Amino acid sequence: MSNQSACDQETSPPRIGYLGPPGSYSHLAAVLHFGDSADCIEHGNIEPVFVSVEEGLCEYGLAPYENSTGGSITDTLDAFHDHNVRACAEVLVEINHCLLSNAPTDRIVRVASRPQVLGQCNRWLADHFPDAERVEMASSSLAVQSIADAEDSAAIGSVLAGTLYGVDVLHERIQDKSDNVTRFLVISREDSPPVGRDKTTMSFITSHEPGALVDVLAVFRDAGINLSHIDKRPSRRENWQYKFYIDTESHRQNPSMQAAIEKARSHCIDFNVLGSYPRAVQVL
Amino acid sequence: MSNQSACDQETSPPRIGYLGPPGSYSHLAAVLHFGDSADCIEHGNIEPVFVSVEEGLCEYGLAPYENSTGGSITDTLDAFHDHNVRACAEVLVEINHCLLSNAPTDRIVRVASRPQVLGQCNRWLADHFPDAERVEMASSSLAVQSIADAEDSAAIGSVLAGTLYGVDVLHERIQDKSDNVTRFLVISREDSPPVGRDKTTMSFITSHEPGALVDVLAVFRDAGINLSHIDKRPSRRENWQYKFYIDTESHRQNPSMQAAIEKARSHCIDFNVLGSYPRAVQVL
Repeated sequence: MSNQSACDQETSPPRIGYLGPPGSYSHLAAVLHFGDSADCIEHGNIEPVFVSVEEGLCEYGLAPYENSTGGSITDTLDAFHDHNVRACAEVLVEINHCLLSNAPTDRIVRVASRPQVLGQCNRWLADHFPDAERVEMASSSLAVQSIADAEDSAAIGSVLAGTLYGVDVLHERIQDKSDNVTRFLVISREDSPPVGRDKTTMSFITSHEPGALVDVLAVFRDAGINLSHIDKRPSRRENWQYKFYIDTESHRQNPSMQAAIEKARSHCIDFNVLGSYPRAVQVL
Repeated sequence: MSNQSACDQETSPPRIGYLGPPGSYSHLAAVLHFGDSADCIEHGNIEPVFVSVEEGLCEYGLAPYENSTGGSITDTLDAFHDHNVRACAEVLVEINHCLLSNAPTDRIVRVASRPQVLGQCNRWLADHFPDAERVEMASSSLAVQSIADAEDSAAIGSVLAGTLYGVDVLHERIQDKSDNVTRFLVISREDSPPVGRDKTTMSFITSHEPGALVDVLAVFRDAGINLSHIDKRPSRRENWQYKFYIDTESHRQNPSMQAAIEKARSHCIDFNVLGSYPRAVQVL
């Protein structure tokens, strides 16, 4: 900003890359984790968020990692494969689909959102707006923006989208499956020091996969280290060779974890510690 | 057909459900596995193929299970969760993107296909048709059909699409990554008897997941049974609870496999044998 003083610049908030558009759940995760004053920078896709962090254009980035009902976000796993960044925090965000409108409820004849979001609120819409036309848009944030001035339309989106575009929240949590949480990893160029309740995310390719997978996982079990997540993606080196992604409940600096990592590494042709970070204790 | 005799009806080929449109790789897998005379029935999505097999409208169905470079096909995993069918065979099909046209090569100014397929052939197109316009269509088969009579256009699709729509194959294997195989499972209401080189596909939810995952996998390792595939999807029972899908190289009727299945089952709150079938020995 042109009127920013030198003092302001020194204490300027970190730049946070997120997957847009503004009002998306990635944006919401950034605001919940870093606060309202964070300098959140929109990106058109997940991979450019990794590039911005890797190249230092952003200090942090939000990477959607898995959803409690939809599963893994493969674009994030592939971006970890291709870019040299570290996981330094995790953020759990409740998916809270809201009906937003500046029109009176009894005049709403049209409800807009992403097709997937409309589908996730199917039952609620059938109960409350059985005759309303459903308008499919590319994102829920765009839908909220588009109906801000409408006198007979609503949109389904986040509370944050309502705040950003000045649209009232008429109903919260209208999705048919109430319990829906997305887990984000915060990425940076460094991971975090231990706090006592930590996680470590790692990726590896086993030497004689997938048979040797058990050997790697057993190393952590035998060291008493709990495995809290596992996923895999094609390694992109050879057909049917996989890169596994695991989270364990320990910090990479713990002696037992260090020993387990070295032992696990001996079963692998490739092994990377993607970062240690404090375990999230609540859903935001 | 109206002129079909009673005798023909008795020996009529089985009905095979596949994910359309005609000329798709699912269609190709059906033709390669069941032969040209198979009665292949198009479906608009993967789940309806499972429904047709479950309800007996089709004797068999083709389910794309994993791709060597793209990973798992989650719609198939979810359909196994929701429908009572068995895996009875596996089919490995090489993805062979071809340039098809009835126009002379030097008159081609336009190349149509699915956006993903155009992307997979990016380098080849840049080398051979740097100035050609790229036209994005909903499926490669539709693209092939659309250019059958064009005098200046080509499409990228399968050999089968060329045969179906009467379009010449000008170049084969034009994808930038040459080695790309999709593994299909053939589904039916019964699985297959042992042939000596068998696989078994299973799904399970562990009791204290994902920590107990290692215990389940170790059962098969300790019995000397190789694990050839693992994947997971949200269980859709509880948040962060997963249903794992594994393939092992043994038939469910083998005594060592029977014992391992019972032992693995004791670590799980849900355990299903989805079927045993002969291992595919070649890529078609």
